[in-house]
Amino acid sequence: MVTSSVVNTYPLSSYTFGTKEPKMEKDTSVADRLARMKVNYMKEGMRTSVEGILLVQEHNHPHILLLQIGNTFCKLPGGRLKPGENEIEGLKRKLTSKLGATVPALVPDWQIGECVAVWWRPNFETIMYPYCPPHITKPKECKKLFIVHLSEREYFAVPKNLKLLAVPLFELYDNVQRYGPVISTIPQQLSRLSTSYFSPA
Amino acid sequence: MVTSSVVNTYPLSSYTFGTKEPKMEKDTSVADRLARMKVNYMKEGMRTSVEGILLVQEHNHPHILLLQIGNTFCKLPGGRLKPGENEIEGLKRKLTSKLGATVPALVPDWQIGECVAVWWRPNFETIMYPYCPPHITKPKECKKLFIVHLSEREYFAVPKNLKLLAVPLFELYDNVQRYGPVISTIPQQLSRLSTSYFSPA
Repeated sequence: MVTSSVVNTYPLSSYTFGTKEPKMEKDTSVADRLARMKVNYMKEGMRTSVEGILLVQEHNHPHILLLQIGNTFCKLPGGRLKPGENEIEGLKRKLTSKLGATVPALVPDWQIGECVAVWWRPNFETIMYPYCPPHITKPKECKKLFIVHLSEREYFAVPKNLKLLAVPLFELYDNVQRYGPVISTIPQQLSRLSTSYFSPA
Repeated sequence: MVTSSVVNTYPLSSYTFGTKEPKMEKDTSVADRLARMKVNYMKEGMRTSVEGILLVQEHNHPHILLLQIGNTFCKLPGGRLKPGENEIEGLKRKLTSKLGATVPALVPDWQIGECVAVWWRPNFETIMYPYCPPHITKPKECKKLFIVHLSEREYFAVPKNLKLLAVPLFELYDNVQRYGPVISTIPQQLSRLSTSYFSPA
């Protein structure tokens, strides 16, 4: 794990993108998703999920890589930890599953940096908070967002049913309608970090 | 400067509050404030301001100390740095001016922690962003928010024209209407930190 208040960023053009087999969503509706969450909670207790913030530069402004499902819904690459799984190792596993090549030698050597945000789901509902509400003794999910330090060159393989977008911070900021509360406040959470920009060699 | 992802917090009842002479606002309107900002910019260049996040616990939930002016407007303790002034020393000076006793021996030994947010003002307007917008080469203000680690016992002297409030994170969260964009997203910025609670001895 890398802890640094500097995040080196490189232009989008320094990365290569390919495709791989589709990775279908496990649920076809929000209701299904919450129902599955409940079943898993009964078996395994609180869900812990980890997501990665991958930064690139375009037009002298930091952009975040988001996976788009269908025409509107965007999410950070990541997912649920297995019971007892280490957060960092679990995030690497999930990043490889979402963005890594099928050829192991081409999978990025993921460098996981600081945790920049923690969100809590008090109930089997969509609403999450950036704190565990005081009267909640058994939260249903804890989601952690980590910086992922990218190297200057990487190859990403994007599942065919998803699109990988580089979204500028100014598009995310104050745009809870489009990106939801977790992704739309990433600009505020990154503001304390310095994103050094390295132009192409 | 203290860098730690743990912030020890103590109950509000462990602090003592007194009053001191009023500290009047320099401006009586937003227009006056922006005009004064412009005059200062011509003389001294970009304004740098520093503000402190002071945490206490009540009802098993973190609260932030805010200064209320009149009936509605709330602000963090802090203010503008002098040209060339060190951020940490400047924040200590401002905290003493806003909250320190007039008797030097009673002034807290301020422990300034991590910077948790940086906001930029691109123009002589009220709007600020958690990044410097890409086309802005001469921002007018840079505001930094720092954690202030309080000891278990402190004496605060509050200017008579202000009220010191302990506002819970759940009241700030998603409440941009009441607290503005800077203060209302403090819960998200603190979410990655662990606020250990020490109950009264």
